[in-house]
Amino acid sequence: MIHTLAIVGATGAVGKIILDQLVSREFPTKNIKLLASQRSAGKIIECGGKQLVVEALTAEAFRDVQIAIGSTPDEVAAEFVPWAVEQGTVVVDESAHFRMQPDVPLIVPEINPESIRLHKGIIASPNCSTTQMVMVMKPLHDAARIRRVLVSTYQAVSGAGIAATQELKQGLQAWLNGSPEEPKIFTHQIAANLIPQIGSEKEGGSTSEEIKMVQETQKIFNDNTIGVCATCVRVPVADAHSESLVIETEKPLSPEEASRLLSNFPGVTVNDNLAASSYPMPRDAGGRDDVFVGRIRQDTSSPNSLAMWCVSDNLRKGAATNAVQIAEHLAKEMN
Amino acid sequence: MIHTLAIVGATGAVGKIILDQLVSREFPTKNIKLLASQRSAGKIIECGGKQLVVEALTAEAFRDVQIAIGSTPDEVAAEFVPWAVEQGTVVVDESAHFRMQPDVPLIVPEINPESIRLHKGIIASPNCSTTQMVMVMKPLHDAARIRRVLVSTYQAVSGAGIAATQELKQGLQAWLNGSPEEPKIFTHQIAANLIPQIGSEKEGGSTSEEIKMVQETQKIFNDNTIGVCATCVRVPVADAHSESLVIETEKPLSPEEASRLLSNFPGVTVNDNLAASSYPMPRDAGGRDDVFVGRIRQDTSSPNSLAMWCVSDNLRKGAATNAVQIAEHLAKEMN
Repeated sequence: MIHTLAIVGATGAVGKIILDQLVSREFPTKNIKLLASQRSAGKIIECGGKQLVVEALTAEAFRDVQIAIGSTPDEVAAEFVPWAVEQGTVVVDESAHFRMQPDVPLIVPEINPESIRLHKGIIASPNCSTTQMVMVMKPLHDAARIRRVLVSTYQAVSGAGIAATQELKQGLQAWLNGSPEEPKIFTHQIAANLIPQIGSEKEGGSTSEEIKMVQETQKIFNDNTIGVCATCVRVPVADAHSESLVIETEKPLSPEEASRLLSNFPGVTVNDNLAASSYPMPRDAGGRDDVFVGRIRQDTSSPNSLAMWCVSDNLRKGAATNAVQIAEHLAKEMN
Repeated sequence: MIHTLAIVGATGAVGKIILDQLVSREFPTKNIKLLASQRSAGKIIECGGKQLVVEALTAEAFRDVQIAIGSTPDEVAAEFVPWAVEQGTVVVDESAHFRMQPDVPLIVPEINPESIRLHKGIIASPNCSTTQMVMVMKPLHDAARIRRVLVSTYQAVSGAGIAATQELKQGLQAWLNGSPEEPKIFTHQIAANLIPQIGSEKEGGSTSEEIKMVQETQKIFNDNTIGVCATCVRVPVADAHSESLVIETEKPLSPEEASRLLSNFPGVTVNDNLAASSYPMPRDAGGRDDVFVGRIRQDTSSPNSLAMWCVSDNLRKGAATNAVQIAEHLAKEMN
């Protein structure tokens, strides 16, 4: 049992789910402290019958905090994480700011839990689109060594925050009414549309989201020889990211064997019965913790290559759930 | 100038666009005959200031018809096409029924117009998702020989007919209102969802739509060694299919060279400026005839491989426009 765990960014979409998960998973902490920006300070959030008051995010706020889980924009993380580490707090950070720093472990607990103990005060949780992909890759990599992954994403709007979901809903209503709509969160209309850009332009014509999927995957598997080609696309779906994957392995792997390996892997559920039109879909995966996989089949263009489809709630395993799982490992080591 | 051209399936979503295209492109025919099922017979359709009466689809209806363009379900095509051929009519058929028959040319006029004259009364137009992909492949194949294509589709509902667009709109309104919805056209809810199945289950865990993309591509390029791996997904978009493509070539091809080749290819428009957030999107491509390409970049997982994104109105180049272009070639030969 630790003394105090803090949620930084407690009033955001992911912050609220982190709080729910701490309660439902009975996280071993005496106190939960909610931190957010100055303008959210004083807000009251219900939690397991108790009322918690949101406090302003300051350096002093971490004085009695052993573990902090941060779900904030990158620039906020860049500021608060050093404050927390200075106070002796171990931070599980959801932002991208520290992920690729060599002395910051990047953790998916089902994959590389042994790296948690290498932390120097900061542990990073991967990008949502990376997490669900590496969850699918891991059992296949262990069995047949993955050489290359080609991924096209179908990403829900909720990853862009609560206001993005509102923008989708307002945009859809306007589209149905035939009235004009002005995008604010997204660069273009998302209603009845697809936006093939997530994040900013980076080297080689890729976006920051696509680069994250390459670099984070290689870091999590500690293997820079795994090739990743990602195309990241925003779709008019509220919750849960979907990914079309082609996975090339060194050793051959049949679809049946891959299905068996995935079924046995913790946190992955196989739903794969095309004859019965049964496969993962975002409206089924929302609000659930698992990564769902289906449409597992031989790639018709190459041997030693499988195609499949995976869906996972980007705010759960893609964010809140993964961070809480990391914090659970930390709390165990602190005892 | 031919005597009579018939549109079979004239009251459908594609049939209406075929009629518009015949008028706007000034197709060289004295008469246009509209054919549809018995229950649509007698309907009046406006066309270039004239009123055309829809006639019932019978064998006799083809007696004075030189060219018929058919946009019907497969089972209707299976019945009417032999009637028409028997009467000496040349049929440009949009259905999948005859596409893979060895003596039926499968034509995209920008790619294999020389095969049109090999017809024995039937010429097939490819599946919408195939057509836009092969339009992108062609100039790259000519320059560097394509060995393999990996495609993940983001397909609009309009390909499933007028009722499918209604189902999307009703489903979205229900989703916004939080009220229940019952899918009829689609197997699952399409509103705020993704359905990773288009068509029926076929061999090896692929769907009929995915098999079409493999087989039709190989037939159009007359090269069974081109590998194609397709994952076809229905998305909550009204018009225009989008595709995430990875194209592997025998010879290396830079993104700049690919962009130049695509820009020079008829029917393809390159829109590729990530820094300005400019790339093809379905809401921009709807109602237009071109295939739009962007996000052209080096595949970060392999040499001799490029990633890109293409969008095209599935009812236009993916259906009506391609068929009318084939009919234009035929009419020229008939003179």
